[in-house]
Amino acid sequence: MIISMKRHASREEIDGVIQRITEFGYKIHAIEGEERVVIGAIGVGDTSHCLEALSALDCVEKAVPISAPYKFVSREFKTNDSVVTVAPGIEIGHDQFVVMAGPCSVESETQIMESAHLARQGGALVLRGGAFKPRTSPYDFQGLAEEGLKLLAKARAETGLAIVTEVMSDAEVPLVAEYADIMQVGARNMQNFALLKALGKCGRPVLLKRGLSSTIKELLMSAEYIVAHGNKDIMLCERGIRTFETATRNTCDIVSIALLREMTHLPVVLDPSHATGKRSLVPPLSRAAVAIGADALILEIHPNPAKAMSDGAQSLDPRQWLTMMEELQPYIALWKQARLAAQPVAV
Amino acid sequence: MIISMKRHASREEIDGVIQRITEFGYKIHAIEGEERVVIGAIGVGDTSHCLEALSALDCVEKAVPISAPYKFVSREFKTNDSVVTVAPGIEIGHDQFVVMAGPCSVESETQIMESAHLARQGGALVLRGGAFKPRTSPYDFQGLAEEGLKLLAKARAETGLAIVTEVMSDAEVPLVAEYADIMQVGARNMQNFALLKALGKCGRPVLLKRGLSSTIKELLMSAEYIVAHGNKDIMLCERGIRTFETATRNTCDIVSIALLREMTHLPVVLDPSHATGKRSLVPPLSRAAVAIGADALILEIHPNPAKAMSDGAQSLDPRQWLTMMEELQPYIALWKQARLAAQPVAV
Amino acid sequence: MIISMKRHASREEIDGVIQRITEFGYKIHAIEGEERVVIGAIGVGDTSHCLEALSALDCVEKAVPISAPYKFVSREFKTNDSVVTVAPGIEIGHDQFVVMAGPCSVESETQIMESAHLARQGGALVLRGGAFKPRTSPYDFQGLAEEGLKLLAKARAETGLAIVTEVMSDAEVPLVAEYADIMQVGARNMQNFALLKALGKCGRPVLLKRGLSSTIKELLMSAEYIVAHGNKDIMLCERGIRTFETATRNTCDIVSIALLREMTHLPVVLDPSHATGKRSLVPPLSRAAVAIGADALILEIHPNPAKAMSDGAQSLDPRQWLTMMEELQPYIALWKQARLAAQPVAV
Amino acid sequence: MIISMKRHASREEIDGVIQRITEFGYKIHAIEGEERVVIGAIGVGDTSHCLEALSALDCVEKAVPISAPYKFVSREFKTNDSVVTVAPGIEIGHDQFVVMAGPCSVESETQIMESAHLARQGGALVLRGGAFKPRTSPYDFQGLAEEGLKLLAKARAETGLAIVTEVMSDAEVPLVAEYADIMQVGARNMQNFALLKALGKCGRPVLLKRGLSSTIKELLMSAEYIVAHGNKDIMLCERGIRTFETATRNTCDIVSIALLREMTHLPVVLDPSHATGKRSLVPPLSRAAVAIGADALILEIHPNPAKAMSDGAQSLDPRQWLTMMEELQPYIALWKQARLAAQPVAV
Repeated sequence: MIISMKRHASREEIDGVIQRITEFGYKIHAIEGEERVVIGAIGVGDTSHCLEALSALDCVEKAVPISAPYKFVSREFKTNDSVVTVAPGIEIGHDQFVVMAGPCSVESETQIMESAHLARQGGALVLRGGAFKPRTSPYDFQGLAEEGLKLLAKARAETGLAIVTEVMSDAEVPLVAEYADIMQVGARNMQNFALLKALGKCGRPVLLKRGLSSTIKELLMSAEYIVAHGNKDIMLCERGIRTFETATRNTCDIVSIALLREMTHLPVVLDPSHATGKRSLVPPLSRAAVAIGADALILEIHPNPAKAMSDGAQSLDPRQWLTMMEELQPYIALWKQARLAAQPVAV
Repeated sequence: MIISMKRHASREEIDGVIQRITEFGYKIHAIEGEERVVIGAIGVGDTSHCLEALSALDCVEKAVPISAPYKFVSREFKTNDSVVTVAPGIEIGHDQFVVMAGPCSVESETQIMESAHLARQGGALVLRGGAFKPRTSPYDFQGLAEEGLKLLAKARAETGLAIVTEVMSDAEVPLVAEYADIMQVGARNMQNFALLKALGKCGRPVLLKRGLSSTIKELLMSAEYIVAHGNKDIMLCERGIRTFETATRNTCDIVSIALLREMTHLPVVLDPSHATGKRSLVPPLSRAAVAIGADALILEIHPNPAKAMSDGAQSLDPRQWLTMMEELQPYIALWKQARLAAQPVAV
Repeated sequence: MIISMKRHASREEIDGVIQRITEFGYKIHAIEGEERVVIGAIGVGDTSHCLEALSALDCVEKAVPISAPYKFVSREFKTNDSVVTVAPGIEIGHDQFVVMAGPCSVESETQIMESAHLARQGGALVLRGGAFKPRTSPYDFQGLAEEGLKLLAKARAETGLAIVTEVMSDAEVPLVAEYADIMQVGARNMQNFALLKALGKCGRPVLLKRGLSSTIKELLMSAEYIVAHGNKDIMLCERGIRTFETATRNTCDIVSIALLREMTHLPVVLDPSHATGKRSLVPPLSRAAVAIGADALILEIHPNPAKAMSDGAQSLDPRQWLTMMEELQPYIALWKQARLAAQPVAV
Repeated sequence: MIISMKRHASREEIDGVIQRITEFGYKIHAIEGEERVVIGAIGVGDTSHCLEALSALDCVEKAVPISAPYKFVSREFKTNDSVVTVAPGIEIGHDQFVVMAGPCSVESETQIMESAHLARQGGALVLRGGAFKPRTSPYDFQGLAEEGLKLLAKARAETGLAIVTEVMSDAEVPLVAEYADIMQVGARNMQNFALLKALGKCGRPVLLKRGLSSTIKELLMSAEYIVAHGNKDIMLCERGIRTFETATRNTCDIVSIALLREMTHLPVVLDPSHATGKRSLVPPLSRAAVAIGADALILEIHPNPAKAMSDGAQSLDPRQWLTMMEELQPYIALWKQARLAAQPVAV
């Protein structure tokens, strides 16, 4: 930690701060500048508690940590990329660019079966679909719940696709884990800590979506929660953040993908549907995601978007989906080439 | 709803849209402008589903609702102010300006007892204190859980203060409701819909904090969730939103208080501690909150902020707290005068 | 400065950084932590250039300054409040709460004369009105230019009010300075550095509005520009910032007023009209501004808002304006009391 | 326009609004809903003035335009892509992917000459370099001014590269236009309307950077200013916007590129250096920009970033620059293929 004292801090106040830091188990290096005193605290201790305590003192200008507050998810902790095995033959994080596609909500057996076949036809390996839906309004369609999960399982049985679906409450974790291959945490629940703790023990890979106004550091801290509670199979997902711009549903912070790949060993996924809210923007953004080095895409398709019960405006129709996947191939080929060059497979 | 078609929409597309709207049960008023066709849809129907369906069509420029998506919480639904009775003699929303004060976390019996006496000494009627703490890091103090709730109950028994404390998961609602007079929903859980639904049936008043990046409309929608599930005793709480400005912990959207009082009949509370993150800014912001017409304050005080386990930098120490409350009195007197003038008590 | 090295920085890289800092004239205090090396640089030098150079090195994690980058405008440089004399008898920053009112734009002689009389009737001491208007669209009314300035001068002659009006380009500074008592810099020009430099030599007090997405620190840096070029009569103006919230025109960062009063000795003004964009919110926000300790208000009034050429929705009509000023008096009385208590007049 | 009345608007108020709209020259279509009256106004008139007037009425809930407020820059006005000829053989907007590279500031003859040769070696066609620098602090290096422009002209003479450089004030437009091939408007000046008007008559192509907190619509409005004042050779530039995220210097709104290509016929450029602030992120983001369909890149390179007077942390060093350009080639090949497929050259 670096503690910088207020300009007119007295000798007594400085000594008080030094003593307090020592109580927390740190060694001290004080620097007496011309304008103010700066104190370096070295060692291992309860950093965040110590920072809180020092920040509370009126004589302290600011107290900042030197090390990142997350450990297990950092690239410093583990240098090589983590690979999450979602199902036999589906590995996210190495040299397989994985696409997850499907409707926003599971609406009926016909709809999810058609969607699954369509997803597979385009080359997706994972089927998405919500059974529990977080909706801003209590009067909107809230999902088919367990019935939806059963339909997803049926679609898996028929098509061989793996299943990713959202879980909204710690109480529902066991139920969803019975059916899903990947447990999705929605943006609004990224800091639902009760849910994160429960996912630490669910025994399934987790797709953790970034909150609407969550920083990259907070996203990593939420992943750290899951690891700290026992589950290291985590994929991070950028899905757009909330800014002043209203021309798109959210603002896609695409650079977070490249930055996350520097900061963490976990795979990074992009959701171009929520990031834009507009289907015509999904194919160009998907190309950009491949080019910048994402590990996977999760996106919305629908047999008939105009009849969708949610997110119709951002869902690709069958023709758009198949065309997009075709046009994406040369970019995926370049992606694969770069991955193989960067990460020689250990023998 | 108003549906504005794309400029070059064909007659066929326009007719298709009109038919679709009719299927949803609305009557149509089409306006053929010189540049484009605009369609008005009149009547009562499943507006949000219809809007989704229309937005999904490529020939539609935009589809916007005319009515607000919330009903029960709107000022149009209920013209006069709602009053929430928190405990015998403590009514929020009428002519009693209520202050809720206490530490961020319940840390120990001594600490919470000292805090409670201090709160009462300053004139607070409600004691705040967290037993379940939402913390960004899994390595930070997570609260004393049920033991904390018991200590709060003990403080209530000794001082007569009512208790407000946070609940973080639908699974914990029954436990917290056993002890709390007011169930607090933290900013990160404002759109934890499973929690909101559970609170609809908890039988206690709810203090609903605005999410870090939630709009005022979304705050009202979350309140609507609780009402729609059976509980109409809700207080809304502004606690600062997340913006680009980092000089304060959050940016206090103080105008939301005045605006909410136009839009809803529910009482509005300000949390000046989280809104600023810095104790020297709490007293001036509290004065402003009274002046703009908030119904209550919820703020952090601590017998010894430098020893606090969380939020020490924004907690008032005993002297600051007592001074602030004293200086606030003439503002509260003006507030009361305005309330009594505006809302003649029914005989 | 505090320079924290990357975790795996080599001894050679660390020595290189130390040498570079020494070249800039600083003394070094290196702290060898268990995880990484942190270097303190003490002394006086070209800090911002040095920070840039160090940040450019791949072995540096981050380089942060300890001192604020502004000097003359800081509270540390000058402890007591600066008072700006706008015209004989009008002093902003001491114990006179000043209100500036008038229409958004000068539209005609009749309109500005009626506005001026109305402003004076309500107790304003300064008349606002734009002759050069920054408009988002090239097709909107752009102001009456010099003719507008002449009408303002006429209104001053007739009513005795001082004049505040906007200047949009360094080329127009001499012309505007001929007529105005206060030169207003609009939000969009807060970082128009050519304009700021010209205002340093204009010989008139400056009202500097905060940019839509400018931090408080940047606002102070822009004020520092004007001081550094020769003019110390500056008032800072909060007028709302741009955030994700669209329910109000801008989000009023009211806490910036209290914070600025800690950070700088310059007077701070609030513009409740642009901060809200809605006239019903102007009176409650004005009360809050007085309560939190602003030095002055600048707001929009119009003899007939429905006929205003700009900003009609946020302009008070005559009755609203006079009522608001009446209701504001007890708050101004409390404000004055606090000011006199805090700042004993020197004998 | 669509004007929606407040719920309890009286018949008299509704008639007043209708009359007011008629005065502005529009035809009326009123829709009497069950909850409120909505009025459609059809025709051609002074829309923005009319909207202002109606918004000012207390009985009006909201008044929204149907048509976009910009005309000449819209894709509806001109369907096919505009091509800006920057210099003989350099056309931006068609099938040539153009890279502009160079240092943040012109610092010395040696530095700019080395930079120019380096830029050309990597395949850039345009040299960037600032002679007038907008700096947050008055104490930072402000650029070499005219001497810098002369050095840029010398570099052009020696290397054949075209020159892009920033202009900060309408007063300096003629001077900069003497030397530059492209006039750059910096983010802080995007709404410096005096400057935009002057650029309408400068006779040179303009590179208009998006403001830190400007919406896409405002960017288009600023371009419309330049066109409306006589200059249609405009390139729009995304350079990151300001959000709550501080892990990168700005947040790159990459989707704006795809969206702008739908909304306007003007070429769109990305600045990956300012968008990220960190050199390691520049190559991946540049790949993404090509993949999403930008027309050009403008980025910072420096012979020795650690000695740069500004923006060293985001400048590529020679090796990084040359490697990046090599790795970019297959993406540019795909880009070119897509462009030629989409826009068959007229014979």
